[in-house]
Amino acid sequence: MKKAEKIQRLEQVIHDFYGDKQVAPSLIEAILYSVEAGGKRLRPLLLLELLEALGLDLQLAHFQLAAALELIHTGSLIHDDLPAMDDDDYRRGRLTNHKKFGEALAILAGDSLFLDPFALVARADLPSQIKVELLASLSEAAGSFGMVAGQVLDMEGENSQSSLEDLQAIHAHKTGKLLAYPFLAAAILAELDSSDRAGLIEAGQLLGLAFQVRDDILDVTANFDQLGKTPKKDLTAAKSTYPALLGLGEAQQFLDQLLERVLGLLTQLEQTSTFKGQVIRQMIEGLKLND
Amino acid sequence: MKKAEKIQRLEQVIHDFYGDKQVAPSLIEAILYSVEAGGKRLRPLLLLELLEALGLDLQLAHFQLAAALELIHTGSLIHDDLPAMDDDDYRRGRLTNHKKFGEALAILAGDSLFLDPFALVARADLPSQIKVELLASLSEAAGSFGMVAGQVLDMEGENSQSSLEDLQAIHAHKTGKLLAYPFLAAAILAELDSSDRAGLIEAGQLLGLAFQVRDDILDVTANFDQLGKTPKKDLTAAKSTYPALLGLGEAQQFLDQLLERVLGLLTQLEQTSTFKGQVIRQMIEGLKLND
Repeated sequence: MKKAEKIQRLEQVIHDFYGDKQVAPSLIEAILYSVEAGGKRLRPLLLLELLEALGLDLQLAHFQLAAALELIHTGSLIHDDLPAMDDDDYRRGRLTNHKKFGEALAILAGDSLFLDPFALVARADLPSQIKVELLASLSEAAGSFGMVAGQVLDMEGENSQSSLEDLQAIHAHKTGKLLAYPFLAAAILAELDSSDRAGLIEAGQLLGLAFQVRDDILDVTANFDQLGKTPKKDLTAAKSTYPALLGLGEAQQFLDQLLERVLGLLTQLEQTSTFKGQVIRQMIEGLKLND
Repeated sequence: MKKAEKIQRLEQVIHDFYGDKQVAPSLIEAILYSVEAGGKRLRPLLLLELLEALGLDLQLAHFQLAAALELIHTGSLIHDDLPAMDDDDYRRGRLTNHKKFGEALAILAGDSLFLDPFALVARADLPSQIKVELLASLSEAAGSFGMVAGQVLDMEGENSQSSLEDLQAIHAHKTGKLLAYPFLAAAILAELDSSDRAGLIEAGQLLGLAFQVRDDILDVTANFDQLGKTPKKDLTAAKSTYPALLGLGEAQQFLDQLLERVLGLLTQLEQTSTFKGQVIRQMIEGLKLND
């Protein structure tokens, strides 16, 4: 299935989920404002591409899981942008949620985006045992042992000098856990054996780290139009970043190395399983920053 | 099992869950500050008492589900108290979470309390099919078709005159859904037939409404020490409440009527199932406000 069709079906699933039985229309409006702001849909696309690479025919349930992941990611962006957090006015080229709807509704929209996805997955047409595993690991990737923990570590690292090691621990949680989730979920859905599973999960973790390094580099090198948000926020906040710690050139090298390691793990998986990584490879190549 | 032992085991489950593998200790500190502030533990106790009334031996998994429910409730209290929401300084007689830890950490602690409970339940030792049903209905009771929707309706009703009908719709969601959840969850766990299940769920919904009427009455009649928070907030906010719409005396009568209807439904259940409602009855009698 083509990428555009995947995205279209993903967005339809989200729309159907929220269009169904609205209790508080303004809440749904605020939720959909941020969900429909777009973005690259990287996490859901990774999941869907990985499932195809593992030989699965894409079903509604797979799109529902992909949607759940995107909803949690969107909830975290809404809360990240709040005045008490990063205090951002723009996201994906539009006003942030609280700028558009006020802080109270933005907080509640984020809350919904954390709470709703679990029903979406739990009601999906999949074996119960698989759903339980998907739900447990989604909760763990997102909550106080995952993404949220990483946000706290990141916040505490602001205005202080973090080591490269600190920085990796922050990002392994803050962005790494949700970016690695497609790999973990694909392994669960394809019922991979434990060694193939471990390789796929490691690839996911490395990709999560790569993505953060890339984000840090872009914060220095890109402008508002390229980012869709205010650039150089990290510099202003005196945050430790990969370019700050390594220098820009070496940060770019580090990014390339990480992506090569991900590609290497996928090659290995192709040799031990039915995995066919072509499209995933292209996605990963697309993350390289060749100036 | 006695009430004090239930509460002690409940708190142990929460403590074990968060003590296990801390990534961001300050986050866990902020979470446990609010969770351990106590309160009546009404929702988890209702669940545990209902399970015993239905003849189940209490297992660790039941305490984990009860804990999950209390965690989501606590998350909603932390976010409710935020400056952008109700802007409260005190809760359960202590500083609110954001007064103690700052707004950013309070937002993230609430986020964790919405995300974590699903893993706690998904990892519990129960049949997968039952867990999936418990998880789906917990998510639905809490998210944008449940509690959060009710909070939005409540917010939009502030500074405006709501009808009695509006008020019931607000509360059916805002407090009703999570208060009814123990009844729904007990019906799932005890695998009641659909008619007994419907009766139990209706009792839960009426109890949820009763609890809100009671809360409104207490806001008018109680002082800080009795409430553990600032009283007469509703009056100050010019919110529609049951005493404001019905008068204090009639609001008290309405509360008694609701509780009697709950007791009536439980009596009915005793006649058609093995349900033994003695302890639940006492809990419900204890909610009456006899001046």
